[in-house]
Amino acid sequence: MSVWERWLADEAAKREDAGLTRRLRARAADDPAIDLAGNDYLGLARDPEVRRAAADAALRWGSSASASRLVTGTFELHAELETELAAYLQQPAALVLSTGYHANLAVVTALADRTTRVLSDAHVHASLVDGVRLSRARLSVVPHSDVDAVRAGLAAAAEAGERAMVLVESVYSVLGDAAPLADLVVLCEEYDALLVVDEAHGVGVHGPGLVATLGLAGRPNVIVTATLSKALGAQGGAVLGPPALREHLVNRARPFIFDTGLAPAPTAGALAALRAVRARPELGEVVRRRVVALADTLGVVAPAGAVLSVPMSSPQAAVAAQAAALEAGLRVGCFRPPSVPDGISRLRITVTAGVQEDDWERAVRVLVDLVKEHQ
Amino acid sequence: MSVWERWLADEAAKREDAGLTRRLRARAADDPAIDLAGNDYLGLARDPEVRRAAADAALRWGSSASASRLVTGTFELHAELETELAAYLQQPAALVLSTGYHANLAVVTALADRTTRVLSDAHVHASLVDGVRLSRARLSVVPHSDVDAVRAGLAAAAEAGERAMVLVESVYSVLGDAAPLADLVVLCEEYDALLVVDEAHGVGVHGPGLVATLGLAGRPNVIVTATLSKALGAQGGAVLGPPALREHLVNRARPFIFDTGLAPAPTAGALAALRAVRARPELGEVVRRRVVALADTLGVVAPAGAVLSVPMSSPQAAVAAQAAALEAGLRVGCFRPPSVPDGISRLRITVTAGVQEDDWERAVRVLVDLVKEHQ
Ligand SMILES: Cc1ncc(COP(=O)(O)O)c(C=O)c1O
Ligand SMILES: Cc1ncc(COP(=O)(O)O)c(C=O)c1O
Repeated sequence: MSVWERWLADEAAKREDAGLTRRLRARAADDPAIDLAGNDYLGLARDPEVRRAAADAALRWGSSASASRLVTGTFELHAELETELAAYLQQPAALVLSTGYHANLAVVTALADRTTRVLSDAHVHASLVDGVRLSRARLSVVPHSDVDAVRAGLAAAAEAGERAMVLVESVYSVLGDAAPLADLVVLCEEYDALLVVDEAHGVGVHGPGLVATLGLAGRPNVIVTATLSKALGAQGGAVLGPPALREHLVNRARPFIFDTGLAPAPTAGALAALRAVRARPELGEVVRRRVVALADTLGVVAPAGAVLSVPMSSPQAAVAAQAAALEAGLRVGCFRPPSVPDGISRLRITVTAGVQEDDWERAVRVLVDLVKEHQ
Repeated sequence: MSVWERWLADEAAKREDAGLTRRLRARAADDPAIDLAGNDYLGLARDPEVRRAAADAALRWGSSASASRLVTGTFELHAELETELAAYLQQPAALVLSTGYHANLAVVTALADRTTRVLSDAHVHASLVDGVRLSRARLSVVPHSDVDAVRAGLAAAAEAGERAMVLVESVYSVLGDAAPLADLVVLCEEYDALLVVDEAHGVGVHGPGLVATLGLAGRPNVIVTATLSKALGAQGGAVLGPPALREHLVNRARPFIFDTGLAPAPTAGALAALRAVRARPELGEVVRRRVVALADTLGVVAPAGAVLSVPMSSPQAAVAAQAAALEAGLRVGCFRPPSVPDGISRLRITVTAGVQEDDWERAVRVLVDLVKEHQ
């Protein structure tokens, strides 16, 4: 056995011992289970018009962008999506990248360097954390949603003459709570800092996202990132903000420059989904209404987004409830240590407008019984 | 003006002064120019069967995977692509990620840590460089294709008791030369090191890639990464190697775990393209024949891959030749400092099997005249 084989075997053994090994399970196209674990919040990934738009784009434009956006990989389709995304999110400009992960890596690495101070909320997504690591910026991890800690960090940065950037999510993926955006914008303006808001879980569920809904879009010190792979039912990511930011990313962001452009099908799928979100505001309303009602029924605090976190008594109880849900035809998620910030195991239930009313009512009845039994 | 706006403006002014500002130009679906700048080496991104497979997948599976591969974002379609990719590249297992960039980030960050020695060829792609930075491994940049330098680096790592990894491309993107793979495999076996070979520009042009063609596939210390966005005419990336590696990535690679699965259309597009590559070996032959002939006609060394680099007398001459090519209906690339390793400006011509014989002959005549005029 080589040193690498031994190392892989040791790592695998450690995972097995801790009961943490994860395996992929493939779904069939005709999988009858209701998916309450994914991020298709508005049901648009399976919407007939969105599917048709994605399919038509593959036929018309081909199955690949076949080059970096900077070479011959920018199609009018990308420009169209960028224009409509910017308009809907009330931002002056948008740049589309091939994943939400790329978008977060791009914005942080192109703006921050060794001399920049980054104040990163303790709960932000792995892609933002990786962006900071790659940028080699001076990092301060701020306790979750602690505005006073952000203020202290910004004051210290100003003292030190550092250019400062604050990283948050509008709606956090794990606990589903919202960032104190209005306070943070004021603070960032006061200290001449940049606020980067990841709207991955905000767009669609809250129409154009929380930044726009709260009237904070277009402020020169607020930048938004978004993913096209959740409510927008496709794949890809975007960075939104001033045109000068977009131009900077085009020229400097390695995860944009050295990557093939987003393929035509997901580009067109996201565009069709965006138009559906705009044309059918009731989709977001359905999700928000269902979330509040389900949270109330289950006796948990209603989240700001579409994902409900239900604390369970133990990792075993969480796993058992998840298995029982699948027996009853529902796929739900399950969070156990070490992937929960506070050590509490949870069922993770995605509320989606993509389920018909009668199926939804059945799902709610199943979930209520399950939680009672296993909590 | 805020400190950030001023900083962006300063950066933009520096680019303008250096004549280095890059802008995106969008192509229309019916763009009549022949694309000799992208990476659709076999013409499969525009192949009717590949387009149809991508379109059908969007209709059948929806326009998004809608979740991480670890949650509900793995479809049988992903499993099918992984099985067929592994079989064709003669590797025991494959894992598909949503870009080639993700694949390179994933493999390096999941295998290397602060205690690992990475010997990285000076010409490897930005995504491998970023992977190393993210991993915080001990980095030695090795002079391009310098086997003696790799040997010295491996000896030093062995001396220091470091787990060592060597990063190369099978066919380098910028200069189009091939890595000395056979020598490197022997060296890595001798020193118990891991060889990571990025086959982005090898797969398709050389059938299953250079690693397989040279009979080096399946060695336990050789790992391959590939992109689905070039010869495979779609989007996405893959890591290929032992099953233990795949399991390790599934459990530990952040760019895999915290990312939405590859969308159905590009997954199916890549699968259809892979089948076409297997069924139509003449596609790779056409490319290799055209490359050799064109290189000969232009009086440059034939590259190992599909991309021909033609040195020009000045950045201005390169730009002028590129513009003249476009007038004549050909899109070609152009490399200028600072994006060339040796400071020499070049025309970059992608040879592709996707152009009909008569169009190709016309293109060759235009290119010969252009190069004569501007070199
Ligand atoms: C908050 C957040 N940001 C970014 C991402 C990455 O987006 P993508 O899956 O499109 O790469 C995700 C999830 O995947 C996310 O939850
Ligand atoms: C050598 C090499 N590796 C990796 C990549 C990244 O692949 P992708 O565009 O699929 O992200 C590229 C080009 O884009 C490349 O040239």
